[in-house]
Amino acid sequence: MFVHERPVRFEDVDAAQIVFFPRVLAYCHEAMAELMAGVDGGYAKLVVERRVGLPTVHVDVDFTAPLRFGDVARMEVTVSRIGRSSCTFEMSLTRVRDGAAVARVKLICASTDLSTLRSVVLPADVRRVLEAQLVTPA
Amino acid sequence: MFVHERPVRFEDVDAAQIVFFPRVLAYCHEAMAELMAGVDGGYAKLVVERRVGLPTVHVDVDFTAPLRFGDVARMEVTVSRIGRSSCTFEMSLTRVRDGAAVARVKLICASTDLSTLRSVVLPADVRRVLEAQLVTPA
Amino acid sequence: MFVHERPVRFEDVDAAQIVFFPRVLAYCHEAMAELMAGVDGGYAKLVVERRVGLPTVHVDVDFTAPLRFGDVARMEVTVSRIGRSSCTFEMSLTRVRDGAAVARVKLICASTDLSTLRSVVLPADVRRVLEAQLVTPA
Amino acid sequence: MFVHERPVRFEDVDAAQIVFFPRVLAYCHEAMAELMAGVDGGYAKLVVERRVGLPTVHVDVDFTAPLRFGDVARMEVTVSRIGRSSCTFEMSLTRVRDGAAVARVKLICASTDLSTLRSVVLPADVRRVLEAQLVTPA
Repeated sequence: MFVHERPVRFEDVDAAQIVFFPRVLAYCHEAMAELMAGVDGGYAKLVVERRVGLPTVHVDVDFTAPLRFGDVARMEVTVSRIGRSSCTFEMSLTRVRDGAAVARVKLICASTDLSTLRSVVLPADVRRVLEAQLVTPA
Repeated sequence: MFVHERPVRFEDVDAAQIVFFPRVLAYCHEAMAELMAGVDGGYAKLVVERRVGLPTVHVDVDFTAPLRFGDVARMEVTVSRIGRSSCTFEMSLTRVRDGAAVARVKLICASTDLSTLRSVVLPADVRRVLEAQLVTPA
Repeated sequence: MFVHERPVRFEDVDAAQIVFFPRVLAYCHEAMAELMAGVDGGYAKLVVERRVGLPTVHVDVDFTAPLRFGDVARMEVTVSRIGRSSCTFEMSLTRVRDGAAVARVKLICASTDLSTLRSVVLPADVRRVLEAQLVTPA
Repeated sequence: MFVHERPVRFEDVDAAQIVFFPRVLAYCHEAMAELMAGVDGGYAKLVVERRVGLPTVHVDVDFTAPLRFGDVARMEVTVSRIGRSSCTFEMSLTRVRDGAAVARVKLICASTDLSTLRSVVLPADVRRVLEAQLVTPA
């Protein structure tokens, strides 16, 4: 299990004074990018130089409690499936101050040649990083 | 059916040069806010003065094509369910230049007292605006 | 004078419930991009295909009143200087509901080859669009 | 001198593939908020519970080099002036990989009652945190 924590920023809340829900998904992407830091040369190099990315093709989220300015979000990330050219991340978000469940998130990402936007086989180093977090559902 | 179109902004793309997927969900929220403009006094007054909001409690998205800088996103929005204190929006996103299907989005929103963050019955004017877009699945 | 109006979005405010000041500058950039729409093929093509951009090299802003959710920002834009490879935009932001002065903004932008990030002479069509908004200070 | 470092996120770049300039100012605000963490109860409590904020009333920036995805921004912050109800922050931004100067930023912030948006005297604990970073220009 990979863990990423990050504070809610001053500008992350909306006019309802809770974190704008798309920004919660940006936090999830951030957790995924941190998890991918272990690929050869790092995630930025994968995207910018090797031109391989993992665009999200499916998102499924249940929100159960809000985050506010001053909160810290904790994301626990596992990989539940690794296919030929896609993978599934499962994330559990909690609020650090009280442990409240904030959201359960499922992201399916597709290994993609960013020049052509065509599907490509998951590179070996990406697959290795994903396998380290693989948890097969019981 | 409610329609909202908006251009992709210069800053909406990410390092993969396509619109960052959480921002696509921000576009969807924007479409929902535009749809809600017809409530008494407008959506901003609903949130800021009446302190009633529609936080998203469930999101389900399939992305099928990317948006790039220069594209215009077209969102077609219907309401598929209106409950006592929640409702379901169904959105179909396309790319105006070629009509390509970009995403199908389902958002479930809960009528909420923003002071207490407790569930409240949908206000009558909110319900009326939602009913105008209600499409019962065949 | 070029005019651009846009509503404050739900997610543009911060924990102080006023528009986060960097987002006011994003509004200004948006106004500049709209002004540049008249270049050959449009601004997106200039950036994405011709690979010429106008990165900001200097910003000077005085904020005099806040924007809130529900407000509409009005930006009046002129060009006060056109050099060989840079230009200066002057913007006056007001709040549409009461005409209050929100900010005075000066942006100096440098014509740049986005592949090399080197300075380039302003393309003729960009210069023409800028000249249409040129107002020499009295 | 207060130092804050943060990576450029995947979504911080724009269609020119450099960090969108308003986001550089969001990084600066973030550095300011981190600096203010030492106030009684922390910065979030100052804003959300004590309803005192430090909205920016003046910004002056010179950008000298771009940040890209994969870069880490380093911000060195000092306070150059503390008035009755306002203060001036001076920030020097560099790129960690090569030490290149990215921007020099001056922010003037006004101590403000967020309920009324009226100017208020800097609270004693805020003043104390600011004084710890005060550097009088030679």
